[in-house]
Amino acid sequence: MSFTAPVKDMLFCMEHLANLPQVAQIPGFEDASLETAQAVLEESAKLCEGVIEPLNVPGDTQPSSFAEGKVVTTPGFKEAYQQYVQGGWQGLQHPVDFGGQGLPKTIGAACVEMLNASNISFALCPLLTDGAIEALLTAGSDALKAKYLEKLVSGEWTGTMNLTEPQAGSDLALVRTKAEPLPDGTYKIFGTKIFITYGEHDMAENIIHLVLARVAGAPEGVKGISLFVVPKFLVNDDGSLGARNDVHCVSIEHKMGIKASPTAVLQYGDNGGAIGYLVGEENRGLEYMFIMMNAARYGVGLQGIGVSERAYQRAVQYARDRVQSRPVDGSVAGSAAIIHHPDVRRMLMTMRSVTEACRAMASTAAAAYDAAHHHPDAEVRKANAAFYEFMVPLVKGYSTEMSLEVTSLGVQVHGGMGFIEETGAAQYYRDAKILTIYEGTTAIQANDLVGRKTARDGGENAKAIAAQIAKTEAELRASGSAAALSMADRLQSAREAFLQVVDFVVGKAKASPNASPNAVYAGSVPYLMLAGNLMAGWQMGRAMLVAQDKLAQGEDVPFMQSKIATAQFYGEHILTRTASLRDSILLGGESACALPLEAF
Amino acid sequence: MSFTAPVKDMLFCMEHLANLPQVAQIPGFEDASLETAQAVLEESAKLCEGVIEPLNVPGDTQPSSFAEGKVVTTPGFKEAYQQYVQGGWQGLQHPVDFGGQGLPKTIGAACVEMLNASNISFALCPLLTDGAIEALLTAGSDALKAKYLEKLVSGEWTGTMNLTEPQAGSDLALVRTKAEPLPDGTYKIFGTKIFITYGEHDMAENIIHLVLARVAGAPEGVKGISLFVVPKFLVNDDGSLGARNDVHCVSIEHKMGIKASPTAVLQYGDNGGAIGYLVGEENRGLEYMFIMMNAARYGVGLQGIGVSERAYQRAVQYARDRVQSRPVDGSVAGSAAIIHHPDVRRMLMTMRSVTEACRAMASTAAAAYDAAHHHPDAEVRKANAAFYEFMVPLVKGYSTEMSLEVTSLGVQVHGGMGFIEETGAAQYYRDAKILTIYEGTTAIQANDLVGRKTARDGGENAKAIAAQIAKTEAELRASGSAAALSMADRLQSAREAFLQVVDFVVGKAKASPNASPNAVYAGSVPYLMLAGNLMAGWQMGRAMLVAQDKLAQGEDVPFMQSKIATAQFYGEHILTRTASLRDSILLGGESACALPLEAF
Repeated sequence: MSFTAPVKDMLFCMEHLANLPQVAQIPGFEDASLETAQAVLEESAKLCEGVIEPLNVPGDTQPSSFAEGKVVTTPGFKEAYQQYVQGGWQGLQHPVDFGGQGLPKTIGAACVEMLNASNISFALCPLLTDGAIEALLTAGSDALKAKYLEKLVSGEWTGTMNLTEPQAGSDLALVRTKAEPLPDGTYKIFGTKIFITYGEHDMAENIIHLVLARVAGAPEGVKGISLFVVPKFLVNDDGSLGARNDVHCVSIEHKMGIKASPTAVLQYGDNGGAIGYLVGEENRGLEYMFIMMNAARYGVGLQGIGVSERAYQRAVQYARDRVQSRPVDGSVAGSAAIIHHPDVRRMLMTMRSVTEACRAMASTAAAAYDAAHHHPDAEVRKANAAFYEFMVPLVKGYSTEMSLEVTSLGVQVHGGMGFIEETGAAQYYRDAKILTIYEGTTAIQANDLVGRKTARDGGENAKAIAAQIAKTEAELRASGSAAALSMADRLQSAREAFLQVVDFVVGKAKASPNASPNAVYAGSVPYLMLAGNLMAGWQMGRAMLVAQDKLAQGEDVPFMQSKIATAQFYGEHILTRTASLRDSILLGGESACALPLEAF
Repeated sequence: MSFTAPVKDMLFCMEHLANLPQVAQIPGFEDASLETAQAVLEESAKLCEGVIEPLNVPGDTQPSSFAEGKVVTTPGFKEAYQQYVQGGWQGLQHPVDFGGQGLPKTIGAACVEMLNASNISFALCPLLTDGAIEALLTAGSDALKAKYLEKLVSGEWTGTMNLTEPQAGSDLALVRTKAEPLPDGTYKIFGTKIFITYGEHDMAENIIHLVLARVAGAPEGVKGISLFVVPKFLVNDDGSLGARNDVHCVSIEHKMGIKASPTAVLQYGDNGGAIGYLVGEENRGLEYMFIMMNAARYGVGLQGIGVSERAYQRAVQYARDRVQSRPVDGSVAGSAAIIHHPDVRRMLMTMRSVTEACRAMASTAAAAYDAAHHHPDAEVRKANAAFYEFMVPLVKGYSTEMSLEVTSLGVQVHGGMGFIEETGAAQYYRDAKILTIYEGTTAIQANDLVGRKTARDGGENAKAIAAQIAKTEAELRASGSAAALSMADRLQSAREAFLQVVDFVVGKAKASPNASPNAVYAGSVPYLMLAGNLMAGWQMGRAMLVAQDKLAQGEDVPFMQSKIATAQFYGEHILTRTASLRDSILLGGESACALPLEAF
């Protein structure tokens, strides 16, 4: 069953919600016209649909395998990766100085989404490389940049993030990997890292590990962690590969999903020490790692949207083909395709509207990222940075949590066939479950949302965004259509629920006189789900306004009608969930932690 | 990681919510004392914990396999099944006349739940046999009963349900399997049946298939379907096994979960016709099949509760052991077990409260079944039948839908380890997904709830149950505790939401002048989720009242305190969801089906 990248909807988001023409006015992004975007997306779609997606099922049935220190990836992955590299896709949004194409994230995000819709396991390799590039760009010395960036930007070498150790997952204060300084300024690295995505593989000639470790004598906790580049093969000054470094894969994991993506246990320094190169300054490793993490978190959000899109398309196809039972409204005499049944429609519309809403949210966040990093005006940068920072835990947390529901509905639409592996729907359900876990669980995203993004500024940024939503409501009301009035009502209810929760969070945060941190953090994930739901719904409200205008001008009628119907569905079926989330947060803060530990 | 059957909570439900002492006053159930229940449950727990549960992981890693017409089940299954048979467990709730123990379903349900918590794949075999027994008891001739029931009740032979064909899943009108009458009163059966659970296996010497087929010349549609007994081996008049019948397994499915349970494609009549024996009358097969289905649907609900309990226990154990990060409330200096973190507590309490609430709901439904079938007073039977019939789609639909959330949270609590198959949490997530599909998808349950259980009597029965809930609210308010007042408020809100939806359903049902069947059925699954949530929450409200009384008497203090805390959590975190469900039903009836078919 073929996959079609949703290029049209992506371009709609870019043009009308993320305002790509405005992004293209930022110096350096002059080439990022709508025409460029369309050409890039269509080219990307060709690769994804024709080369990457056909490897998705093989990746599941013939996972990457490990023997004698080496990982052999799924047949076809290596060749497909070469095509990805040759097309220059790794460098799409990286600087021209290092061989990239220098396009804005606003365009790049769409390509990442469709790559993940095609094949999450495959897409993870470039996603991790992106993180390594970001870290080196931000904190690497000129020497490190010169040595590694071009090859990473081209994709000839791939990157990894080495954070987790057996005792240190969410809690990086517990990292134990050691770095011993050598007289020449390099370090010897010793330790074990686990859950390293593409930590070992056969798709590229070198792997550049970015590794958290403690320099001997560093302070305890997160303030004593440094970041190192540890290449699989040392790199000579002329750029050629030198000796094999002392980092070795000792096993890969047997996982429920994303089976083609090798998840490695890496052993550093078993044969005298792996040579590592300090990134930036000692003891600032966590800060740099967060640069990678933030890029990766946004990317994982796109994975959620991509797998949702894929699950949706497959479910629609099945629902069109499978004939079963008469429609309750008598619209068809005799048995009909199940897409005629109202509950199947509700499931498909849930899948569709959530996917579109999360895409719209991610797209506007990408535009804010571009402005935050590249706009000439410092005030504009600051405002966009605040918006982007608020959105990252929502893009990651909400899009991935919803992908669990969407992929579950995808199986459900298939009935019994959905549970049969050969059908294909089950793989998305299994793959998606990692998305709410890696690069920070939903709870970790929610902690970030509560602490750094809401309580720290007393809710100011959250309320500023809410004020923008109120403007959208007013525009919807002014437009006067039944759909717009419904959307305005739903957005208003959701926004008011959001503001109540923001007040609750700020009022009971640690520094407040009524502090009740357990109550705040017990409500953190529901708060994230409420905020993500609202932000995604807001973009659907904006999309409805655009679609109404276009429709009035007779442009692209079926697409715009569908956008309005999908937005209205989102308002009435998904935004309505915010009331219950609010109630559980405001009422249930104490009961969440009331049961004594010994009673569990 | 060992499993402990929740015997104490099961006995609490039986004694105080299902009122077992009252069930024991029904003629025939005199032996069903609390002491008997406790003894039975403890004995059942021994078998489940010691024999059946240890086979759960092997069942996943070494699934049943098929070759040359034969199915070899997971090593150990056959021996464990022999122990199950020798213990007399298959006959627990079946008539003494046929060798059963004649215990009420109120007790039997708890044993079924713990068997499923131990191993869903294993438990499916007895579950299907139960269905076959029910059908024969209700509709079988004396000759059929005499020939088959004892062996089925003992478990020496197992039973199956043969409904589905490639073109006929939810829509049984499309069944094509043929039955040709023979002069001796038997029939020859020809056709293909798919998705037949335990349709072939090596655990018992004979398999009794109950098969839907059309007698030559029968009417089209569901009114032309008859039910047949088709044994794998024909049975001689002396009870010994005769010739191999012409029904053969041609393959088994490769599934996402419950892998040890063989899901067979059965071919009937490839070598001249399989001999079948009519059950009851011709063309009444669907009616009889519903007897099996209703028993099986309730049983699948118990599967959802069982897998939820198992996932909860595993998650608690991990959360106690895994040390990571400092608690936000400063209650532990340094890193603590993650069970100290509020979001982990919220997840565990969600898992726990939903599991207990669904168990309580299923337990009261079982008592209603017992009274509906065995009470001497016809009026009491009728009232209980109405209640039980209303509860079946909720026990099936709500408990299984919630098991998806519970098993997903179970993985989530484990973080990255949850995604690694060896951890064990992922299997529950994979296994559970079939529960919302087989024996009627959630949508099919919801159709039943809307059509037969709500609209048909104009909402009378639904409102009668709501009136009972209002009484519980009044009792909670009268008790005056903060927990009880919170519970009363939450129940009241949920009950009012329920009544609004019942009015909506009745008002827009097919027969009404304002009929809008698409709007009603688009809201059918949300209505089921609302109703199930309320009914389960109601039982938690009743449980809270009991626990408060016991606590006042100083009885079993920690257990009763936990029950109150768990009930309050359910009220504040789960019952609160009903408002959003109501809103989506009342507001979103039209938008669910607004997108034109071609726009998907």
